[in-house]
Amino acid sequence: MESKENLVYRLGSGCELSDIVIGEIYEAKVQGFAKFGTFVYLNSHIKGLIHISNVKSEHVEGDKILVLVRNIRDNGNIDLEEIIIRDYEVNSVMCKKSQTRLGDLKNKVGYNVSLDVEIAQIKQTSGPTIFTMIDETGKENGAAFIEAGKRAYPEVELGDIVHVSGEVMMRNDQLQVEISYMEVLPEEEKQQVLKRIEKALDDRAYPEDLPFMIESEVLEKLKPAMKEVAFIIRKAVFTNQPIILRHHADADGIVAAVSVEKAITSLIREEGGDPDTESHLFKRAPSKAPFYEIEDVTRDLDYALKDNVKYGQKMPIILMMDNGSTEEDEPSYRMAKVYDLTILVVDHHHPDESTDEFLSAHVNPYHVGGDFGVTAGMLGAELARMIFPPVEKYIRHFPAVAAVGDRSEAPEREKYLRLVEDEYSEENCKDIALALDYEQFWLRFNDGREIVKDILNLKNDHVRHKKLVSLLVTEANAAIEEQLQTSMPHVERSVLENDSLLFTIDVEIYAHRFTFPPPGKTSGEIHDILCKENEGKPVVTLGIGPDFAVIRSRGVLMNIPLMVRELREEIIGGGVNGGGHLVVGSIKFVEGMRDTVISGLIEKIGKFPIE
Amino acid sequence: MESKENLVYRLGSGCELSDIVIGEIYEAKVQGFAKFGTFVYLNSHIKGLIHISNVKSEHVEGDKILVLVRNIRDNGNIDLEEIIIRDYEVNSVMCKKSQTRLGDLKNKVGYNVSLDVEIAQIKQTSGPTIFTMIDETGKENGAAFIEAGKRAYPEVELGDIVHVSGEVMMRNDQLQVEISYMEVLPEEEKQQVLKRIEKALDDRAYPEDLPFMIESEVLEKLKPAMKEVAFIIRKAVFTNQPIILRHHADADGIVAAVSVEKAITSLIREEGGDPDTESHLFKRAPSKAPFYEIEDVTRDLDYALKDNVKYGQKMPIILMMDNGSTEEDEPSYRMAKVYDLTILVVDHHHPDESTDEFLSAHVNPYHVGGDFGVTAGMLGAELARMIFPPVEKYIRHFPAVAAVGDRSEAPEREKYLRLVEDEYSEENCKDIALALDYEQFWLRFNDGREIVKDILNLKNDHVRHKKLVSLLVTEANAAIEEQLQTSMPHVERSVLENDSLLFTIDVEIYAHRFTFPPPGKTSGEIHDILCKENEGKPVVTLGIGPDFAVIRSRGVLMNIPLMVRELREEIIGGGVNGGGHLVVGSIKFVEGMRDTVISGLIEKIGKFPIE
Amino acid sequence: MESKENLVYRLGSGCELSDIVIGEIYEAKVQGFAKFGTFVYLNSHIKGLIHISNVKSEHVEGDKILVLVRNIRDNGNIDLEEIIIRDYEVNSVMCKKSQTRLGDLKNKVGYNVSLDVEIAQIKQTSGPTIFTMIDETGKENGAAFIEAGKRAYPEVELGDIVHVSGEVMMRNDQLQVEISYMEVLPEEEKQQVLKRIEKALDDRAYPEDLPFMIESEVLEKLKPAMKEVAFIIRKAVFTNQPIILRHHADADGIVAAVSVEKAITSLIREEGGDPDTESHLFKRAPSKAPFYEIEDVTRDLDYALKDNVKYGQKMPIILMMDNGSTEEDEPSYRMAKVYDLTILVVDHHHPDESTDEFLSAHVNPYHVGGDFGVTAGMLGAELARMIFPPVEKYIRHFPAVAAVGDRSEAPEREKYLRLVEDEYSEENCKDIALALDYEQFWLRFNDGREIVKDILNLKNDHVRHKKLVSLLVTEANAAIEEQLQTSMPHVERSVLENDSLLFTIDVEIYAHRFTFPPPGKTSGEIHDILCKENEGKPVVTLGIGPDFAVIRSRGVLMNIPLMVRELREEIIGGGVNGGGHLVVGSIKFVEGMRDTVISGLIEKIGKFPIE
Repeated sequence: MESKENLVYRLGSGCELSDIVIGEIYEAKVQGFAKFGTFVYLNSHIKGLIHISNVKSEHVEGDKILVLVRNIRDNGNIDLEEIIIRDYEVNSVMCKKSQTRLGDLKNKVGYNVSLDVEIAQIKQTSGPTIFTMIDETGKENGAAFIEAGKRAYPEVELGDIVHVSGEVMMRNDQLQVEISYMEVLPEEEKQQVLKRIEKALDDRAYPEDLPFMIESEVLEKLKPAMKEVAFIIRKAVFTNQPIILRHHADADGIVAAVSVEKAITSLIREEGGDPDTESHLFKRAPSKAPFYEIEDVTRDLDYALKDNVKYGQKMPIILMMDNGSTEEDEPSYRMAKVYDLTILVVDHHHPDESTDEFLSAHVNPYHVGGDFGVTAGMLGAELARMIFPPVEKYIRHFPAVAAVGDRSEAPEREKYLRLVEDEYSEENCKDIALALDYEQFWLRFNDGREIVKDILNLKNDHVRHKKLVSLLVTEANAAIEEQLQTSMPHVERSVLENDSLLFTIDVEIYAHRFTFPPPGKTSGEIHDILCKENEGKPVVTLGIGPDFAVIRSRGVLMNIPLMVRELREEIIGGGVNGGGHLVVGSIKFVEGMRDTVISGLIEKIGKFPIE
Repeated sequence: MESKENLVYRLGSGCELSDIVIGEIYEAKVQGFAKFGTFVYLNSHIKGLIHISNVKSEHVEGDKILVLVRNIRDNGNIDLEEIIIRDYEVNSVMCKKSQTRLGDLKNKVGYNVSLDVEIAQIKQTSGPTIFTMIDETGKENGAAFIEAGKRAYPEVELGDIVHVSGEVMMRNDQLQVEISYMEVLPEEEKQQVLKRIEKALDDRAYPEDLPFMIESEVLEKLKPAMKEVAFIIRKAVFTNQPIILRHHADADGIVAAVSVEKAITSLIREEGGDPDTESHLFKRAPSKAPFYEIEDVTRDLDYALKDNVKYGQKMPIILMMDNGSTEEDEPSYRMAKVYDLTILVVDHHHPDESTDEFLSAHVNPYHVGGDFGVTAGMLGAELARMIFPPVEKYIRHFPAVAAVGDRSEAPEREKYLRLVEDEYSEENCKDIALALDYEQFWLRFNDGREIVKDILNLKNDHVRHKKLVSLLVTEANAAIEEQLQTSMPHVERSVLENDSLLFTIDVEIYAHRFTFPPPGKTSGEIHDILCKENEGKPVVTLGIGPDFAVIRSRGVLMNIPLMVRELREEIIGGGVNGGGHLVVGSIKFVEGMRDTVISGLIEKIGKFPIE
Repeated sequence: MESKENLVYRLGSGCELSDIVIGEIYEAKVQGFAKFGTFVYLNSHIKGLIHISNVKSEHVEGDKILVLVRNIRDNGNIDLEEIIIRDYEVNSVMCKKSQTRLGDLKNKVGYNVSLDVEIAQIKQTSGPTIFTMIDETGKENGAAFIEAGKRAYPEVELGDIVHVSGEVMMRNDQLQVEISYMEVLPEEEKQQVLKRIEKALDDRAYPEDLPFMIESEVLEKLKPAMKEVAFIIRKAVFTNQPIILRHHADADGIVAAVSVEKAITSLIREEGGDPDTESHLFKRAPSKAPFYEIEDVTRDLDYALKDNVKYGQKMPIILMMDNGSTEEDEPSYRMAKVYDLTILVVDHHHPDESTDEFLSAHVNPYHVGGDFGVTAGMLGAELARMIFPPVEKYIRHFPAVAAVGDRSEAPEREKYLRLVEDEYSEENCKDIALALDYEQFWLRFNDGREIVKDILNLKNDHVRHKKLVSLLVTEANAAIEEQLQTSMPHVERSVLENDSLLFTIDVEIYAHRFTFPPPGKTSGEIHDILCKENEGKPVVTLGIGPDFAVIRSRGVLMNIPLMVRELREEIIGGGVNGGGHLVVGSIKFVEGMRDTVISGLIEKIGKFPIE
């Protein structure tokens, strides 16, 4: 047989035996030598033999030569003849014609397929190695086996773009490709495939442009940042990347987080995930502190790295809600960044600019002239709709709960309340918020997922929802009442230089400990009563513990962060730090300097102007 | 072909193709229309075609019509002819003849069966959905598949009565029905089947009438209540309902709980359960407090609800042992009742009547004129025999251990000691009780299942049992000795108005902390010594901590609950509460009011008459 | 047919049908009777029939008789004839010829094999019972089935030597023997097989004789003890025995433990283990205290016993590193010994002789004239090489880190530093040690396996290693700086009778709590500063808490254990105990006696000579 003059083919790595044409000339690479001839590779995995009688020159291993395909036998052996030509044109055969997409696998059971995919997880079982593959159409598993418990294709790593061939099977009623061949694509092909997959994934991940549930200038301005967060989360779900949601453990934080939890888990289900997938890919964790503690990031990293090794999972995205935007988070962010974690923040606390260098996206009303009145719960519910629009019908009332829970005074509060007033009165919303706070106290730092859903009426069991909220509100109010009866008689009153009324209470020795309400809330409740009793007057309440004080105030133009900075400098060995908002916050110190710090603090408070 | 005049059949949902007789007339419901004819349902799942040539009238979907069966083809297609008759008699075909019971499945491997069962668990795997089915003869699994990870038959819920058809297979050496069809039975049939299953289950669940291990008037009077508890527990095991056993973490409570644990786990094994079933269906948890804390019910509910969602498990029964019968348990019970949990109590503490509204059954010697001398451990062991009689030989000595552990002075104490005196002396029993207390201290609130079994000699390894108890007793006594050497020099003595001797010790600053013995036990040991030193005199010992005091007394006719109530009223802002028995108990207060409360308490104690 | 006169065979339990020779006479045991004849056993599992026409005498079940093999049919049925001879010689047929070794199973897929093995694990699944079998060539699983979830061969126990027959299969790409027959070998055969397996395992387990990484007299003298530890660990891996590694939670302890972790897990992998095997067979747990606390041994035993029951696992070996050699460990050792656990210690703290009775091997420099300067980290790295030599390249720098971390002043310090100076400067090593201490603080008592590997540069990701260590060192130093700024102003200075300078600081009320650095380290940092400020003078620093004091000193020839003993005797009700080294240590007491104890302590310190 004769080939066309001067036309030579280069076989792409995606090509199979059936893509080779008898009579054509191909580039080949010498692999090794036998008595009866020379073995060459036609691409990365198709091997042929040049019988000794057809070898035309001397080679060493690795030489590139040209060969003519003389025959392909029934057993798959290829008979070649060496060809020597000077000038020729090379034609790359990409073999894309036979490529299957993962979304089509269900129609190919029993067939051999050829796939270009990204590797999204690599799990070694005691039998085969399981590779989770993604492309622009979906996610499926492939199984490869060398030896029991031994990692197949050790050169393939998480995130690689590979070419895979194998037979599509059903195993325990699940689709699976029994991988007969896999290779990492060379750079050029990789870029092509990656671009194709990424492009398609990005298109899918980009959130729909929905109007918000209410009209809000602040929200409109935040839309681009919210879309960015929604985009990153949707893409994580499509590419099997775990998400850890850390949130403030109060009603607003819970509402924010549960909205997004509902959206993400619904999206995982829609993508074919089962309950196990869900628990591997998503975890919600209430935080002890109002920021990301080093202990928390340490635990998150410890688990993530172990899962990465044990289950071959990607490193997670960290999503912070109702906290995360201040300097106090930075030590933990620095730690997370050693492992290149993506960090997202949705918060309504006053942000420190320096924090932004760690964040891939940050939604915060302060960025656009809003304030904490646009609460995390409002942002979370709107974000949830961007992630998975059908979630709306379940969470429409969430922002109203967040609004009253966080005592928002922004115009958005009324709008969200009006949106659901037919079903949830303002009183109902307050009850739900109190029930969340109370229940979270007893849950400690567990997510209490199903109980919380019932409190928020996310399970459509209205009777249970009503019974549960009503019980929790009754218990919470009884506990607050008991605490106040115990503490109020010990409140001490004085009048400061600036004529404001100062009330102090030792919340360590004059309140029940380790029960609801905890010291911060106890101080707040006392302050509320004293404000009512002293209508119209400037009131400051200090709830003092052994090494901390909680500050609540009304009508005094104080600046807590400033006082903390000054006290830290003035009181040597006081170990003073803390902060919060301008007029509400807390201060910490070492126990032995308590009197010095407290009297210094009171002196400073007395010097601020009153309203 | 001609059918019998005016006789028409109604095919029950249990009927299969083979139950249809060619030539007979059946009721049918119009399902849909094709070019070539009309499809109708003969029952909920058998479909036939009326060829267009055999359609006699015009229909809309859902119409009920009559059809004659002309032919059943080899492929299962049914050829029908519409029949129009005015007057006819309907004969229901129930097809019960072909029904299989779950207990017979093992003889039907490879066959198609038809079952009427209750659904006891629904677990979604990444492949099929697994339905656990129960009937009056047993428990087996069925697997149904639509799509990987997707819930099959989403209309079927936990607790439904369903009709199932499918093939019996062996999968990994386990019986399984590959469900080809399942439907919820209509109300009428459901009631029939439910009645049949319930009746049979109730018969099986009802405990045998065994005599108690000893003669006891109190036990005889408690028998009906004990049988009720045993019945509910046995039925839970038969119907795959989880049981959470919460118990007091002292020797008596452990003995009570381990008796019942042994009975329940043995029964689960006898029912074919493996170690996994066991750990899903039964959990024993020692409680920190002597009552059901809100934190505990919160955790129990959190886990139970998650298991309910993730594994499709039933909500659990709560069984309280050696606690559970007082007002202090009510907040937790109210919470459990939001989720309709069944609560059972086996306790020997003085019960508050108000608690009973939450309980499905309550065994308590006070209900029948007995007192705490009939300890929870005695009740538990007798209850265990009702649940699973063969357990007796393992636990005969348990009541004696409980008796000495709880210092019972009831006549039952001697009888139980005599029952086992050949094998266990009173000294042995005391040692076992002390070993349990000491070991539980280090186990914190883990169940320590296997170690506890060895302490109780439940594993038939006498040598290990002896070595273990002897070691623990030695260590416990050494620790008590060290504590007493440290504390005793700090005990202060005074004589009260009523001539009783008052001893006070600050157990916070004059005792080792966070080690064995803890403050309560330390106070008790000190009291015992002081009683011996002051033979015949009235003695009161107060073990005082920063916000609590432990009260032990002898020979003073005091009333602790009364004093607590009075101090609570008299000391404004004292945060006083607590209680216990009349002459043994504890009192809590806020740290800042300690001196006021303690001196108030001492004054009151001094006013009670002495014996 | 005729047999040789007077020669009779006794068929061993390892024999199969194919070992029976037609025409020979065999011993047999009567099993039962049928109308058509008598069934007999030729060995424990081969049954044959004597047709009624060939029965020569009357028997009862269990009778031993002689039979001639007339025929073996194609279906495996054996036709026998009873033979009656008086005098005969018995020839035992052991059938060892057909025995397969586990290492050969991979070549026998699809064949029936006969094995003599030790049972190393027995796991009941919901289907078959899985027996892990070991012999001198490897470890494989066998599956035996009677009934779903029911224990097959209940007479076979962990550690038994058994004969197994069955077919070799691949199940989920894993080798497995489907056991058709298994029996515990009779004593004589057992001893033979055991000897063979043990001999071969011992040979494999015995560590290679490698030179140490550096020259050291102390190490050379410790070699035999280290080999003993390595041997026991290697054998544990070969025989599926779990290992719990408990270690001191500081840099030296971590380095020691991670060296050995790396060696053990590598060996498990080489033996074919997967990640699951690894997590069942090896656990590393940092200890809260510098000794084995009762709470820790309690938890270890609780889990081990539950695993023993649930997964049929062997009881574990306890390996203590950088602690374990003192009296304080004995209560826990006594507990472990009730369960016959093997305990190994690799420590460099001054050992108490009495402890050795609990230990199977103990490596300690004090045994050979060395001291704590030969740190646990040095010992651990050298031990790791004995366990798995290829580990060396990963851990060569570990001893240098341990040396600077524990402030070793032994000559080995310099040698280990020189060994790796091209890659790690002394400064680098110090940074790594500080990073470990700081990270472990936040890990609390989790092992933080993967993070710790990165700190120690065990994952070959140099960039991440550098970033991580640098970040942790920066954060640690900032935290120390903050603590010192808070505490230093409160340090009080006095001069003692012996002219040494005494500095005291209340670390409870003048230091930040629950953060890094903790009280002990805070005291050490303060002491270092004061030493520098008072160059050349004797300095004692006391870091005082409510019920403890940390003692650091330079230049005073004090004896802390002696002072503790004296104070314990002198101060009645002081609850004094504690100890440590001669000049560095801590003392505990009850809070109420703090002033008495501290002034007593100071008085004693003032009486020691200064250097």
